[in-house]
Amino acid sequence: MKDVQINKIAVVGTGVIGNGWIARALAQGFDVIATDPAEGAEDRMREAVDRAWPSLTKSGLAPTASRERLTFTSDIETAVEDADLIQENVPEREELKRKVLQTIDTFAKKDAIIASSTSGIKPTVLQQDCMYPERVIVAHPFNPVYILPLVEIVGGEKTNSSVLERAVAIYEKLNMKPLVIRHEIEGHVADRLMEALWREALHLVNDGIATTEEVDAAIIYGAGLRWAQMGPFLTFHLAGGDQGMRHMLGQFGPALKLPWTKLEAPELTEELKEKVIQGCEQQAGNTSIAELEEKRNEFLVRLLDLVEEYRTESESIS
Amino acid sequence: MKDVQINKIAVVGTGVIGNGWIARALAQGFDVIATDPAEGAEDRMREAVDRAWPSLTKSGLAPTASRERLTFTSDIETAVEDADLIQENVPEREELKRKVLQTIDTFAKKDAIIASSTSGIKPTVLQQDCMYPERVIVAHPFNPVYILPLVEIVGGEKTNSSVLERAVAIYEKLNMKPLVIRHEIEGHVADRLMEALWREALHLVNDGIATTEEVDAAIIYGAGLRWAQMGPFLTFHLAGGDQGMRHMLGQFGPALKLPWTKLEAPELTEELKEKVIQGCEQQAGNTSIAELEEKRNEFLVRLLDLVEEYRTESESIS
Repeated sequence: MKDVQINKIAVVGTGVIGNGWIARALAQGFDVIATDPAEGAEDRMREAVDRAWPSLTKSGLAPTASRERLTFTSDIETAVEDADLIQENVPEREELKRKVLQTIDTFAKKDAIIASSTSGIKPTVLQQDCMYPERVIVAHPFNPVYILPLVEIVGGEKTNSSVLERAVAIYEKLNMKPLVIRHEIEGHVADRLMEALWREALHLVNDGIATTEEVDAAIIYGAGLRWAQMGPFLTFHLAGGDQGMRHMLGQFGPALKLPWTKLEAPELTEELKEKVIQGCEQQAGNTSIAELEEKRNEFLVRLLDLVEEYRTESESIS
Repeated sequence: MKDVQINKIAVVGTGVIGNGWIARALAQGFDVIATDPAEGAEDRMREAVDRAWPSLTKSGLAPTASRERLTFTSDIETAVEDADLIQENVPEREELKRKVLQTIDTFAKKDAIIASSTSGIKPTVLQQDCMYPERVIVAHPFNPVYILPLVEIVGGEKTNSSVLERAVAIYEKLNMKPLVIRHEIEGHVADRLMEALWREALHLVNDGIATTEEVDAAIIYGAGLRWAQMGPFLTFHLAGGDQGMRHMLGQFGPALKLPWTKLEAPELTEELKEKVIQGCEQQAGNTSIAELEEKRNEFLVRLLDLVEEYRTESESIS
């Protein structure tokens, strides 16, 4: 892994996502400088950091963490000029993001990494107006940014691969799980998955099949419990009995033709089957399905106790 | 709520799902009789129940729970004749399920409830060959059935509404969260949501965008953590800042037109907007967004500690 020397992080745009980055970076012991042109932005930012701080304290602050290491300036040039990482979080409009990234690119140090939090725009699109596009990436976090570990790292056509490596090391220092996406697509990977579920949920409400509360209940009492510990592929690997995903695809493959969602499935070719089966077997590694099951069960029993304390659903679903 | 007197549960078909029902029913202190024509089915069933028992013990057994209250017969008539609830779990093929349900209907007590565990077939289709279709329903559980609380209850055109009420009371006695689906559709509700995400995941793997492991990581380190406690609607309600879902739909509504998934979104009409916004506001009830946030944060901090112990992902994702 690259040696990454990083002292100062600049955060451009202090909405929900920007403020989440600020709180996370402070908690991990970095100097942070933030900028936002909106009136009252600094006050809202400091309030947001204060609201996040108790959770961050419970998670464990870095020894050098301090809210006093946060400064604010309404001047973007001042904010970015000596930062090692610049995280952009302006509203999700392509032309605006491109303009802001161009400004950042002009004033940032040559070896600074410039990362956009964009949910859906490709880095190749975002970096095209920059003089030094090789250090421009997407680093897409998830709300609440100061707690959830996932960050998708995506390079554009002009991004240097060594920059991606440095970025991974930096986000690991921010106590995150960087997931490098090798092929840029709109919505990256996580939002593709969430957006599919979200659009299906909107169809169900639109068609009068279920209320928002019923849709939420259909997730939190079932799949949502599993997905905190195990993703959809490994979950189905375990649903296939001792033969795992191979049995599963044999048995439920035909269901891909059924109208169980408004989304058309890909053709289940031999090639796709093998990709999926071998992917799951590799994920399981040397752990047997019985052992995976035992671990999952222990987890679920403890998770059910935990969610019981924190459920927000009303009791009216049945 | 109806007074439900239920002593004996019959389970027809002892695969992964059937055995899950058996373990759950025994743990809640019921007599269970199981039937399956396959050779060696009884042994596999008893092994499956033994494997589930430690988790069930940790969750808390009913005082009268005992594995000795389980009997097995290869004869379906004997299995169903004096049961109060008959849960059918034969393979997911329409003609087979219809035939088995017809047999159950012939030999069951007139006031017994007959429930199919089908993932996707509508109850109206399943009940059509029965003499007493008014007591035939779908009761669709989630794997592992002995731990996950969700069960979708769906009536067909000929189902009596009082049967649905009795079914809800029965599944609550089985320590489950029954979700009554008012309009039957293929895949009910939960599988619609899961299937959309699953098909998108298959597209991502098929198109070479991500491996199965990367897809799983994109869920478990992000959305999966949230969905154990809060569904997709309430999650977005919190992502919208103080204005909640109203702000969220204003800001991200246009993204429904973008190619962020292979699934086409419904038109975001004023009517759909209001359904979604008012649904979320009703779910939130008198709890402010700040309070919901605080609760979510506390939950997530504790959940992250818990998943840390039980992660199955290899460390190779970045």
